[in-house]
Amino acid sequence: MKNKGRIEEIAHIYSGLQKEMCQTLEQADGEAVFEENKWEKNIGSGKTCVIRKGAAIEKGGVNFSFVGGDFTPQMESLLGEKANHYAATGISSIMHPVNPYVPIIHTNVRYFALDNGTEWFGGGIDLTPHYIDIREAGNFHRELKSICDKYSFDFYPHFKKWADDYFFIPHRNETRGIGGIFFDRLKPDAKINIEQLIAFSTDVGSAYANLYAQIVKEKNLKEYTSRQKEWQELRRGRYVEFNLVCDRGTKFGFESNGNTEAILVSLPASAAWEYNHEVKQGTPEYDTLKLLRKDIDWVNL
Amino acid sequence: MKNKGRIEEIAHIYSGLQKEMCQTLEQADGEAVFEENKWEKNIGSGKTCVIRKGAAIEKGGVNFSFVGGDFTPQMESLLGEKANHYAATGISSIMHPVNPYVPIIHTNVRYFALDNGTEWFGGGIDLTPHYIDIREAGNFHRELKSICDKYSFDFYPHFKKWADDYFFIPHRNETRGIGGIFFDRLKPDAKINIEQLIAFSTDVGSAYANLYAQIVKEKNLKEYTSRQKEWQELRRGRYVEFNLVCDRGTKFGFESNGNTEAILVSLPASAAWEYNHEVKQGTPEYDTLKLLRKDIDWVNL
Repeated sequence: MKNKGRIEEIAHIYSGLQKEMCQTLEQADGEAVFEENKWEKNIGSGKTCVIRKGAAIEKGGVNFSFVGGDFTPQMESLLGEKANHYAATGISSIMHPVNPYVPIIHTNVRYFALDNGTEWFGGGIDLTPHYIDIREAGNFHRELKSICDKYSFDFYPHFKKWADDYFFIPHRNETRGIGGIFFDRLKPDAKINIEQLIAFSTDVGSAYANLYAQIVKEKNLKEYTSRQKEWQELRRGRYVEFNLVCDRGTKFGFESNGNTEAILVSLPASAAWEYNHEVKQGTPEYDTLKLLRKDIDWVNL
Repeated sequence: MKNKGRIEEIAHIYSGLQKEMCQTLEQADGEAVFEENKWEKNIGSGKTCVIRKGAAIEKGGVNFSFVGGDFTPQMESLLGEKANHYAATGISSIMHPVNPYVPIIHTNVRYFALDNGTEWFGGGIDLTPHYIDIREAGNFHRELKSICDKYSFDFYPHFKKWADDYFFIPHRNETRGIGGIFFDRLKPDAKINIEQLIAFSTDVGSAYANLYAQIVKEKNLKEYTSRQKEWQELRRGRYVEFNLVCDRGTKFGFESNGNTEAILVSLPASAAWEYNHEVKQGTPEYDTLKLLRKDIDWVNL
């Protein structure tokens, strides 16, 4: 593998980022602490940090992994590249809150290198409120825009649209939430070098934990009833559908014989499904469903 | 489409079978009744019968559909056939019980015809106990064997193995349950004609409802505690994983722009996931996990 030193450097940075993210999230929760589980498989190693039954976070994971191996025909068709071997390092994280007024949040940053010399970054952040709060959605997107703008003014518009397209559940004709940013195959070029891309991806990871800490602080004490909890369970059902049916990361994890428990720590502690569930016009649930669509300009709404 | 008369005849038989299945299952539940929802989409029509919050059945669906349309490139690659148009009619059903000692049951029977003249039957039954009861598993498999043996002594051994391979969750290295029978591309030939195949597939559907009625009668009053309910929720989580990640019927349904609510009526009312859940040796949960593997000779165990 070319760039062996580089991938090790990036893995080291991501491993430090994982620690920082866990600290920020633990402080935000105020009660639960992350359990650390190191794992090793034939494809590589990783550390899964899991937080459970917190004051704010019901279940959450921050995964770090550093893997590599044969570039299989399945990966070729999934990634549209030709190579013999790959190496990848990244962090992925999802937090499922206790309070239905606190959204689910997800991030992923990753670096991928092939033995044909190709290398790229991928990742993103997206927010899945059980109840969409337009002010919160605006703040979230403006913060992501400000991070993107530090690196390129092209990033936010391009990556925001990509998130709308990616975090979409075709069989429901719904977006997963209010989107965020999503990027892939982001390669160093004349405009942006590898160090800047490393900095961008670590900024994304840091912003994730800080943004969530802020939202938890604002929303976690908001009162709710069993009606909001039931709605949360149904929305978690949709989240499960996205992760198991649509998510490329989950598919890639399974294809590459990844660590199943680490991959599926993304699933909520519980979820519900109701046949033909209907919501009445004029309810907060109805208002949220209306906003689960692409191309909403959250920054300027 | 060739065989237009034939597919209409089979659709009519399946529609009658749906009615019969619902009656048997309603009687078994003793409390809840099926709601009927007819649907029509551009690809065809169907009737979804849903039972909820019963004395025995927490959530269950019996779907009938009669659809057709362009044979898309996705279907070509999924089915390995070349054609311009397809038509299909079938029943699929899943029952999720209240009592964790009652298993989840599933069946599917379907007839598929292509405009290139190819036609076949597919389907099966499988049982997913939250707690495996060896006597019940033996009865279940012996009953399936006796139905198969009416048509061909090759059927049971062949279709039992197929079920072991099909109802398997690779990322968990677990079977979904104790299997049953699974068959596909079952075409009329010198040994078995189309009328016999129609009779076989309707026998499968009838057996499903009757077998479940018998199990409900035996097990529904068995006492359980919150520990068994929690285990049931986790096993339902696995069921969701199979249906969304592995099941070809779900994939085909989404690919063919099917009725999402009808397809996903298969999901339980609720499910749970726990990171790295462990069971202690010597517990009933441990004993069940040990039996979630292929190639167990349930008939003679």
